[in-house]
Amino acid sequence: MKERDFINIIKNTLNSKYIGDDCAYLPEFGIVVTQDSLVEGVHFLREFATPYQIGFKSAAVNISDVCASGAEPKYLTSAISLPDDVDEGFIKEFYRGMKDGACGAEIVGGDITGADKIYISVTAIGSTAGRRIASRKNAKPGQKVVVSGNHGSSAAGLKLLLNGKDTNSNLIKSHLMPEVQFEFSKKIATVINEDYAMMDTSDGLMDALSAIADESGVMLEVDFDKIPHNKELEDFDNWKELVLFGGEDYGLVATADKAYGGTVIGSVKAGSGVKVNYKNSSIIYSKEDVEKNLFKHFKE
Amino acid sequence: MKERDFINIIKNTLNSKYIGDDCAYLPEFGIVVTQDSLVEGVHFLREFATPYQIGFKSAAVNISDVCASGAEPKYLTSAISLPDDVDEGFIKEFYRGMKDGACGAEIVGGDITGADKIYISVTAIGSTAGRRIASRKNAKPGQKVVVSGNHGSSAAGLKLLLNGKDTNSNLIKSHLMPEVQFEFSKKIATVINEDYAMMDTSDGLMDALSAIADESGVMLEVDFDKIPHNKELEDFDNWKELVLFGGEDYGLVATADKAYGGTVIGSVKAGSGVKVNYKNSSIIYSKEDVEKNLFKHFKE
Repeated sequence: MKERDFINIIKNTLNSKYIGDDCAYLPEFGIVVTQDSLVEGVHFLREFATPYQIGFKSAAVNISDVCASGAEPKYLTSAISLPDDVDEGFIKEFYRGMKDGACGAEIVGGDITGADKIYISVTAIGSTAGRRIASRKNAKPGQKVVVSGNHGSSAAGLKLLLNGKDTNSNLIKSHLMPEVQFEFSKKIATVINEDYAMMDTSDGLMDALSAIADESGVMLEVDFDKIPHNKELEDFDNWKELVLFGGEDYGLVATADKAYGGTVIGSVKAGSGVKVNYKNSSIIYSKEDVEKNLFKHFKE
Repeated sequence: MKERDFINIIKNTLNSKYIGDDCAYLPEFGIVVTQDSLVEGVHFLREFATPYQIGFKSAAVNISDVCASGAEPKYLTSAISLPDDVDEGFIKEFYRGMKDGACGAEIVGGDITGADKIYISVTAIGSTAGRRIASRKNAKPGQKVVVSGNHGSSAAGLKLLLNGKDTNSNLIKSHLMPEVQFEFSKKIATVINEDYAMMDTSDGLMDALSAIADESGVMLEVDFDKIPHNKELEDFDNWKELVLFGGEDYGLVATADKAYGGTVIGSVKAGSGVKVNYKNSSIIYSKEDVEKNLFKHFKE
């Protein structure tokens, strides 16, 4: 069973209106809240990532969710479970990294328990004061599709790591210490005068495009050549797949009236799914295609 | 290294004023926030607890922290990591239990990832509106020591489970589905007119008494015979130790001017440590004694 199926079961079991966006928006307190976990062996390996980098990323992935809502990241809490072989040095470096990955948000709580592997769960709280809060349901035909950040870098960096390429590549840095799109989020959320959709690309650019299209009942049409990516990526045979389907970049995708400092890569249309234009051809991805991570090769 | 040492490292690394109580109090939003984890094999075993009970307890332990601050439990988020052998039925029952253990708080977010064991981390948010928020630092000589809930039941229930006693004992129920002291918390926090200390007994009654004494720079003196406990407990050889040191009861300990529906078991004095009176003798526990879980036998 896939994570998406599980989330649907949770939604149905709880019958909650809050579950669906990167954050839950709680107007009563003027906050958004989100919680995500990193598990050793699933999300990171101690042989590839330093304690500082693990801490940095565990903050960044949650701050990215707050930025995807348009709120201002303010506070973090963490719960970490640690095996016996983890020492004081690990904890110090982990929290130093977490602090540096927090985009100024303050760590206000920390729970520690034992476990046989490292398990990290972080909660981030953002302030909605002065911000217009986004939702995946808000895309409307006529809006532009805007992205911020590079796409495909993290997945390419992971490939390099797994292949034993211990280089100083920026791709590896993108994987271990993702750059959160803090400024783009701030700009769009403080300036825009209409409802907008926004989501982070934690599960890939195509996943975000498809989710916004599905939740809003529209089609998103994008030009592949306009998607910002690191040129180093083009050394990989499957670089186009990495750009569209590679996860963990923590870029942002929004639908809005203009670029707000990001890059316009397409527009919102009536219809469903995601249409990707490349040279003189175009390919349509249905929701089901994207759920299967089904990359379709372009005609060259 | 012990959990307490780790927490001190985190405190020092982050230099945070928020870390120390069961919850972090964020006046900016009128909320408190707390996050705690339950790990399979450390905090629960699937052979003893049903998915419903695991869900119930994972909400309850966090709601208990909110109640220990005096705030009103409002929202929960959860992040769970699950092995492949966990199915849809587990998720449904887990969230049904979580909902029932939440004392009316609403579950507004859920993240799911893979793992080789079940890891559960829950964040609870409480509202401070109309409530006076407690701190472990607030105990003052002259106040009464008040407790709510039974003490020792959960540890005794765990013993029964581990010894294969699959009975309908209330002690086992106390372990698997702890009763949160919601009403006591509400009463004291909405009525009291002075600062008060409060903490839950997640790590045992003595741990809470000692932490309040230490953080407030006072001595807490209590009469053992006044401590509420389930009479079934007296069948255990070490029942007095279970009452003082048994964990996971999720009762509350407060220092206040009167009982607020709880039970007065002693009073706050100048000094340090915890003094326990029993018949004509008394025993003093230093902070170090308590950190070592050093039960001292009473003279009979």
